[in-house]
Amino acid sequence: MKHLDKSQIANLPRFERMNLINSCGGIKSANLLGSCNAAGKTNLAVFNSVIHLGSNPPQLTFTLRPVTVERHTYTNLKNTRFFTINHIHQHIIEKAHQTSASYDAAISEFDEVKLTEEYISNFKAPYVKESRIKMGCSFENEYPIKESGCIVIVANIEHIYFDEHIQSKDGFLDLTKAESVGIIGLDAYVKTEMLDRFSYARPEEELKSIM
Amino acid sequence: MKHLDKSQIANLPRFERMNLINSCGGIKSANLLGSCNAAGKTNLAVFNSVIHLGSNPPQLTFTLRPVTVERHTYTNLKNTRFFTINHIHQHIIEKAHQTSASYDAAISEFDEVKLTEEYISNFKAPYVKESRIKMGCSFENEYPIKESGCIVIVANIEHIYFDEHIQSKDGFLDLTKAESVGIIGLDAYVKTEMLDRFSYARPEEELKSIM
Repeated sequence: MKHLDKSQIANLPRFERMNLINSCGGIKSANLLGSCNAAGKTNLAVFNSVIHLGSNPPQLTFTLRPVTVERHTYTNLKNTRFFTINHIHQHIIEKAHQTSASYDAAISEFDEVKLTEEYISNFKAPYVKESRIKMGCSFENEYPIKESGCIVIVANIEHIYFDEHIQSKDGFLDLTKAESVGIIGLDAYVKTEMLDRFSYARPEEELKSIM
Repeated sequence: MKHLDKSQIANLPRFERMNLINSCGGIKSANLLGSCNAAGKTNLAVFNSVIHLGSNPPQLTFTLRPVTVERHTYTNLKNTRFFTINHIHQHIIEKAHQTSASYDAAISEFDEVKLTEEYISNFKAPYVKESRIKMGCSFENEYPIKESGCIVIVANIEHIYFDEHIQSKDGFLDLTKAESVGIIGLDAYVKTEMLDRFSYARPEEELKSIM
């Protein structure tokens, strides 16, 4: 196996180090965050760090990169307190990735990449119509991570929408049926295929498949 | 689409709510954290929240559930400061999942699930020999998340090991070549297949595939 220690990693060329470390943690979630500013101008941005935090109350968390340049999503969600999280599926990966370009705040990524704004039940942020799993969220809290300048956001799930056929009887959403993709690093998109789903693990008890 | 608002989610049966919310954020990383206590007794536990934090210095983060019951990984990494992160690939998912059973601290999950402890270069925590991407890490900091009682851990990457053939020329690790899996919810394992890898997105510029 190839081995690199901390000092060898530090001495890698900058982009090689970024590509290595950004991809080494594992497969990441792939979501589009929809928001708007006080004047109603919409914004859409790809995030690979959304993860559930707890189910009662239902909360998610995600990490924002250092606010050293203007971060429209952060500004919008601090100002309006509301935003949406929309799964990226395998037929919209190019459009989703293009939202990561540095567009001016006066330009909506929805228009630029040709994804459709959707407003449901007066929720104050735009959903992505093409998305098959989407959540309306509200800002709850933020934790600055001093080691990196990143900010961990805690958000409440106010609404959840999903195609009915992807849900199992026990509540589980089979994201492979929704064709939700994963992300490696910052720029690679992977499709997923179910291998197995296991029973609750107990000592001295054999795992059962619960597919 | 099926719609549930916050109060409907709150009124779901407990396990149905957990399964729904745990799976709604997207695909998650699948890693085994190896550690040992002061006496050298080893521990191995599956985690689905590992994600990179920054590349210079190389750091990862992951979330620990509330320390309301004994958490051996947390106790070990606070006491010894060192642990390993080992990717789960598709041929070890049953063994990996079985580590989530509540074994007594005197029992090593390595022995119980038949994964192999590996010690490399005097690093003070056991790696998983079967794993194809593994990191030796040190504890850096912790952030208690008051909304859920979870703890966000910040860790340094001290060493990284990976099969040479999975790395692209630009440093990127193609996790699909290592057959690294993803997790949905707490108990479902998915294989991944590369769809595409895109160039850096810029306004008014078409994305290129950089595979």
